[in-house]
Amino acid sequence: MAAKVRNVKLTIAYDGTNYHGFQEQCGTGLQTIQETLEKCLAKIAGKKIRVYGAGRTDAGVHARGQVVNFDCSGWPVPVDRIPLALNSVLPEDIVVVSAEEVPEDFHARFSALAKLYRYSILNSRQRSPFLRLYSLFEPRPLDIDAMQKAGKLLVGRHDFKSFQAAGSTVKSTVREMYQCNVESKGSLVEITFSANGFLYNMARIMTGTLIQVGLGKMSFSEIQNLLEAGNRALAGPTVPPQGLCLEEVKYKQD
Amino acid sequence: MAAKVRNVKLTIAYDGTNYHGFQEQCGTGLQTIQETLEKCLAKIAGKKIRVYGAGRTDAGVHARGQVVNFDCSGWPVPVDRIPLALNSVLPEDIVVVSAEEVPEDFHARFSALAKLYRYSILNSRQRSPFLRLYSLFEPRPLDIDAMQKAGKLLVGRHDFKSFQAAGSTVKSTVREMYQCNVESKGSLVEITFSANGFLYNMARIMTGTLIQVGLGKMSFSEIQNLLEAGNRALAGPTVPPQGLCLEEVKYKQD
Repeated sequence: MAAKVRNVKLTIAYDGTNYHGFQEQCGTGLQTIQETLEKCLAKIAGKKIRVYGAGRTDAGVHARGQVVNFDCSGWPVPVDRIPLALNSVLPEDIVVVSAEEVPEDFHARFSALAKLYRYSILNSRQRSPFLRLYSLFEPRPLDIDAMQKAGKLLVGRHDFKSFQAAGSTVKSTVREMYQCNVESKGSLVEITFSANGFLYNMARIMTGTLIQVGLGKMSFSEIQNLLEAGNRALAGPTVPPQGLCLEEVKYKQD
Repeated sequence: MAAKVRNVKLTIAYDGTNYHGFQEQCGTGLQTIQETLEKCLAKIAGKKIRVYGAGRTDAGVHARGQVVNFDCSGWPVPVDRIPLALNSVLPEDIVVVSAEEVPEDFHARFSALAKLYRYSILNSRQRSPFLRLYSLFEPRPLDIDAMQKAGKLLVGRHDFKSFQAAGSTVKSTVREMYQCNVESKGSLVEITFSANGFLYNMARIMTGTLIQVGLGKMSFSEIQNLLEAGNRALAGPTVPPQGLCLEEVKYKQD
């Protein structure tokens, strides 16, 4: 009889400030979320366990709802004990929010139906020492309505090639954007993107582009053009990572 | 004719995480808020300017409303330009919120009538990677009503010797506490202290003591006793600095 495969899904939150992104960077000696998780799992499981992440967040990008899965067959700890056990060895800037057992074929990345990212902009005349690691500071007034209208143009199934970091190579640059919402909350402007997939730097380039709209430097027709042109040079700048947070990953069973 | 003395009051906010407190620590090479401010002032004023702070916040303690003053006689920059000028050279974790010219005899520390400190406790089963630098994590349930009632016992003019770090030497340990309020906001518990002065570590020892009450480990009569006993050993532990923030300093003219 073959041993039963035990596949565990974790939802994790982290402050990405002190990490070089999610993904292991073999041989570079740079600290990543994945390596830290695997090191801590090995500590409590007594063996090397490989984790698979839903989204490869970049250096400085945060998460409130990153999802990972791993095969822990043969490791007898009950799944509801895993958060407490892992949190007791993880550094303070990474927290396991929940754990559950999932079917053998569940894969954090390939089973994901949608990801939700949020970008925070501090739109105030004054910087905040407390938000500097969690937002982009933009002191110029932003036209939120214009940004919201422009954001709506991005919703739907499009070729997002203009919103992909130059030099990236993926088979297809077509993605479906389910939601692009611009909201003002006090001095914060939050842009929420939900899509079935994100190209490299896509959320940050879209944010940079919507800010151009908010500043009156880019028009709706230019945004519409961007979706047809497939030219990164026509989009706005890539905003810095610290404003971005992976909020949620959606799966069929949710 | 004697040159006119030009006394300027600044309100500043800072994230204390990366500083060894407010006050200059001569010859230690440790970075402090005061030294950083003075270095940046020297950069824009072209001369050494001494700043006087209202509260000597400890290493890791934050401020939203610290007040400093300095004599900038002979430096011709208009006072309303000082925030922008200073903020352009200050590191991102220190921000000048406002500047105003004040009478010659104004002193940030000696003219202060009251200071308001707030201590934040994350009272949740789960740590937060985003609040780790700005709160104390306490996963055990806290009885907020009991804490609030115990806090009220501290209000008034008392000898606060029990709430002073052992080994401190000050002439008098009598202070007047105007407010001690315990409030629950979602998973955060905020304790606000307002007094005409604070002994060394007083806000942090009071918080540690109120937490003991919240955990059911200390009774109201023990709190009342503390005010009479003048014995640090009877109070609760000194909670860590990162939950504390100097919110406001009050002056006559306010």
